[in-house]
Amino acid sequence: MDARPIGVFDSGMGGLTVLHECLVTLPHEDFVYLGDGARLPYGPRPLPELVRFSREIAAYLAEQDVKLIVAACNSATSAALPQLQEELEIPVVGVITPEAHAAVQATRNRRVGLLATEATVASGRYAELVHALDAGVRFFSIACPRLVPLIESDVPFGAATVDAVREYAAPLKEAGVDTVILGCTHYPLIRPIFQRVFGRDVTLVFSAEETAREVAQTLARKGFENEKGREGSYRFLTTGDPDVFRALGERFLQLPLSSVEHVGLTELERAAA
Amino acid sequence: MDARPIGVFDSGMGGLTVLHECLVTLPHEDFVYLGDGARLPYGPRPLPELVRFSREIAAYLAEQDVKLIVAACNSATSAALPQLQEELEIPVVGVITPEAHAAVQATRNRRVGLLATEATVASGRYAELVHALDAGVRFFSIACPRLVPLIESDVPFGAATVDAVREYAAPLKEAGVDTVILGCTHYPLIRPIFQRVFGRDVTLVFSAEETAREVAQTLARKGFENEKGREGSYRFLTTGDPDVFRALGERFLQLPLSSVEHVGLTELERAAA
Repeated sequence: MDARPIGVFDSGMGGLTVLHECLVTLPHEDFVYLGDGARLPYGPRPLPELVRFSREIAAYLAEQDVKLIVAACNSATSAALPQLQEELEIPVVGVITPEAHAAVQATRNRRVGLLATEATVASGRYAELVHALDAGVRFFSIACPRLVPLIESDVPFGAATVDAVREYAAPLKEAGVDTVILGCTHYPLIRPIFQRVFGRDVTLVFSAEETAREVAQTLARKGFENEKGREGSYRFLTTGDPDVFRALGERFLQLPLSSVEHVGLTELERAAA
Repeated sequence: MDARPIGVFDSGMGGLTVLHECLVTLPHEDFVYLGDGARLPYGPRPLPELVRFSREIAAYLAEQDVKLIVAACNSATSAALPQLQEELEIPVVGVITPEAHAAVQATRNRRVGLLATEATVASGRYAELVHALDAGVRFFSIACPRLVPLIESDVPFGAATVDAVREYAAPLKEAGVDTVILGCTHYPLIRPIFQRVFGRDVTLVFSAEETAREVAQTLARKGFENEKGREGSYRFLTTGDPDVFRALGERFLQLPLSSVEHVGLTELERAAA
């Protein structure tokens, strides 16, 4: 039995979709969630910068004595997962791999699309993984720079978001894909819009549930599970404004966030040093 | 080809979950949605009163020349569906039947729970339908009077909602059900809360997607479909405050509601007369 919490991080709110699935699967575990709101969005940043941010956050979470870290951000996973896994003693679970696997399983016409941030598309990780699983799949990637800022804005569900989704979806519909990977943990927060734009015939692949399963299996196999039947707790940390985090978090996740603490970037840097 | 719109009604916002699934399945159809916000909630009302309200609304929608009516409200369906079907020439599709069917298919231990409004539980329709499909199922119904008012309130995702869901869920967890029918179209609006309270081992049955499928099949079989490939439109009517409707509707459905019109109750009464 292992009473240490699980650490989850993202640039902002998106990783809460992964946290939600973890809370459904692992109600008896404690969680510490860190959103790097001060440096949001991650998507347009160069990969070496994302490596640095991810290392700072992972080091900070490791200092909080977490037993496992979830990189609940596709941009950070694309940029930094191997390095985090090499440097840390505790297991680090990322997104991306589970979705690539699910998409290859789901497609019938072997035409798969990806909507993701610029960093994730630039890393080429999805194309690599999809082709490692099925070299015959036609793969189409579209970078969606406007989506994360719109989702984290004051008007996440307005006409601008619907227009942006339609614009990014158009080349994938044109290419005739039957499966689309929503390769950013923010995107499930506007799931209904994606569903309406793509319709019933396109399979949408989200990472959150698959990632939660991976976390649960890792804990079980390593003997890191907390006591079943207890009620887990959760703590929220942000490098940005705690009030903004609480308001958006409650609206998106329907989870009352009683306590949201501010963490300074210097604390992150100190942990990583 | 039939260019008439489809009418959808509910006491308030809940039917929007059915409308959403219809928009995913039938993007080429036009819709008129009517929410009876002035007389919300329907759940605590006596069945004969719900029959009167449903007849008024259905008559009003029929006057708008709709080709099919969806009773996107479990309380109204429980109380009035047979009567609406007898009185109207156009088809009327309700909720309830699809969920009862899905629940009987899903259960492994043949212990099924229902969370619904007082009117829906009092009507006994779910128990009847479930037992008609499998007389060996143990069926447990819980009336949840606090949920619809909380979901339509200013703080739908607060601790009060989480506490209410836990309280209503407790006897079903105690009874060991493995399948729960969420028998109110409002409940998908707080789906994440239900998912966390029931966890991964309980199957949650929602009506919206099944109902959309029923609507699509009915249109196809009757030759009532609109032209495929066109972009459908939607109009929103409410007997309550249009601004409240727009704000809650956009938040819950992530659908920009450009126009929400007020409809007076006297207009409904006149249509029914």
